Amino acid sequence: MSFTISPSPRVRRSPFYEATVADGVVSFTSYNHMLMPTSYGDPGAEYDRLINHVSMWDVAVERQVQLKGPDAGKLAQVLTPRKLDKLTVGRGWYVAICDHRGVILNDPILLRVSDDQYWLSIADSDVLFWARAVAGERNLDVEITEPDVSPLAIQGPKAADVVGALFGDTATSLGHFAFREMSLEGIPLVVARSGWSKQGGYELYLMDGSKGTDLWNLVKQAGEPFGIGPGTPNPSERVESGLLSWGGDTDDETNPFEVRMERYIDLDAPDDVIGIDALRRIKRDGIKRHQLGVQFDYTERFGLYDRASQILKDGSRVGAVTAHAWSPRLERNIGLALVDRSLTAGDAVDITLPDGTNTSGTLCELPFI
Amino acid sequence: MSFTISPSPRVRRSPFYEATVADGVVSFTSYNHMLMPTSYGDPGAEYDRLINHVSMWDVAVERQVQLKGPDAGKLAQVLTPRKLDKLTVGRGWYVAICDHRGVILNDPILLRVSDDQYWLSIADSDVLFWARAVAGERNLDVEITEPDVSPLAIQGPKAADVVGALFGDTATSLGHFAFREMSLEGIPLVVARSGWSKQGGYELYLMDGSKGTDLWNLVKQAGEPFGIGPGTPNPSERVESGLLSWGGDTDDETNPFEVRMERYIDLDAPDDVIGIDALRRIKRDGIKRHQLGVQFDYTERFGLYDRASQILKDGSRVGAVTAHAWSPRLERNIGLALVDRSLTAGDAVDITLPDGTNTSGTLCELPFI
Repeated sequence: MSFTISPSPRVRRSPFYEATVADGVVSFTSYNHMLMPTSYGDPGAEYDRLINHVSMWDVAVERQVQLKGPDAGKLAQVLTPRKLDKLTVGRGWYVAICDHRGVILNDPILLRVSDDQYWLSIADSDVLFWARAVAGERNLDVEITEPDVSPLAIQGPKAADVVGALFGDTATSLGHFAFREMSLEGIPLVVARSGWSKQGGYELYLMDGSKGTDLWNLVKQAGEPFGIGPGTPNPSERVESGLLSWGGDTDDETNPFEVRMERYIDLDAPDDVIGIDALRRIKRDGIKRHQLGVQFDYTERFGLYDRASQILKDGSRVGAVTAHAWSPRLERNIGLALVDRSLTAGDAVDITLPDGTNTSGTLCELPFI
Repeated sequence: MSFTISPSPRVRRSPFYEATVADGVVSFTSYNHMLMPTSYGDPGAEYDRLINHVSMWDVAVERQVQLKGPDAGKLAQVLTPRKLDKLTVGRGWYVAICDHRGVILNDPILLRVSDDQYWLSIADSDVLFWARAVAGERNLDVEITEPDVSPLAIQGPKAADVVGALFGDTATSLGHFAFREMSLEGIPLVVARSGWSKQGGYELYLMDGSKGTDLWNLVKQAGEPFGIGPGTPNPSERVESGLLSWGGDTDDETNPFEVRMERYIDLDAPDDVIGIDALRRIKRDGIKRHQLGVQFDYTERFGLYDRASQILKDGSRVGAVTAHAWSPRLERNIGLALVDRSLTAGDAVDITLPDGTNTSGTLCELPFI
């Protein structure tokens, strides 16, 4: 069944909205109180562009929470259990934001924009309010806002060609997760080597919401020789690559150790970091669940599911499949699973799909590819 | 243009989802990371049922944030600048949750469920995280969760007939915003005299998410003699009635005095209430904007807008229309306006609609009806 999404001022348009409509967007999801394109009607072509050519995505829903002022660095540090003393200006780091229990409430990229200015490029929860609560309660001297910044992603093996054509070597020579402020025909933006795929790419953080269509069309034009076309964060590629979707693959109890984020956690981070005590305790006591991949025996190609599958072993529930996808490269159905720690890669499991269908599968390490 | 909404595990189904699909829902919005029905395809009939008969709504998106434990009352109080010492068990109060600047970040109903247990029945922002941040930073002994509770609203002049048929006098004799725990054929729920309309009504807070279809059908059956049918929070009725939609009618600077919430603010609330200092200062210095109604001269019936209109006076921008609606009872286009304090009811203004059309209108007091 398919339903329309009704217009509401609570669910905002992206600056690229008009351009995506002109390019044939057919469906949206909501993310951070905004609309995000999820399909242009040809999933096969969209996947192919991402894997073999280059794709452009409206990911303005990756809202920025800006921390600015004398205590911006201090606030950034207490918000994440990753030691930030080596985060230099012009670099972005993937971090977990945890609550006092050590549970992940967002997994943003933290960009250090200047000495006393940071952006949290966030997943789908109200980090703006979380950060304000902490700053207000700790009396920190920092201004916390959502600036007029809207990322447009260019992803795929030919992304560097497009970015090179637009910005030259200054942009293409950026290291992974490095960024710099630039402009394009007077449009202010940040060019970052980042993006929610493993195919390589860049994100242009548009810094003037009135220029969305202009920027979209400049990228489209520069990308034409390389076969660029519109796309979206890709449900198949991201499962193949084992990328986490906060709020989909996580629940109200998920800690970073359960979902392969251990390398972004420093247990010797300062004691005033939120959640650090809980994380030290969890690490000491051990986790109860962990994230693995699952290869399904079910052969009919998956579409999009909005709910988890249940995973069973010897008749008992031992976990859930939080993301399902047909993998064109593996030519099989795969998924991301959050399962009991007693299960490991290679284990055969029974699975009940959201529609009640019983099937089976095998757990495996991530990523798939 | 209309677009489909794509399935995602990040955007959850309501327990009433299957029942609303069976009853012909055609469109949704997202709210608190869930899907909420917005139309069953016949806006005229849905409005008529609400105004003249009785309507049933899936408002499971009104998520509950439960505060439970020794410090639950203390936390509830610091979260809102309304004195709670007279809030007794079995009563719900409309409150503002403000940040340290006095800006509204949610406008929930706060229900006192038991001595040390409260529910915040929230608008569309992550109060769960806000409350956890405050409790964690203040070291309060309170558990903060989202319980398995999903409201179903019964609204309209014949709502009491339906609730009477289902629950008897115990329910219909409830005072405004009073509630009590009851059950219906074994389904645990709370019956509250409340709802997001001014047509009178009740909300059944379903306390077992596996019973959504059962409860829906029991209400439908009991309501049949009274002409019940499916509906949704009604965009026309709520503008006529001057009901606030947080996140639509408010922005990142809106304080309670600007949007007619002054009577829910106690400036002599305890000094440790978040935002109380800022609110005292705002009250002393005076507000810069206020909310009024607007009657449009534009005669073509409004549909749904997803953006604000601009309000101009002598060529200068003086505010915005945050909600637009065709009023069947007034037989004209109306709206909610957030305008400069210098403007008052009776003032004629120029208005630029979201699509660029220039028109005009007259400001007026709220509510319209």
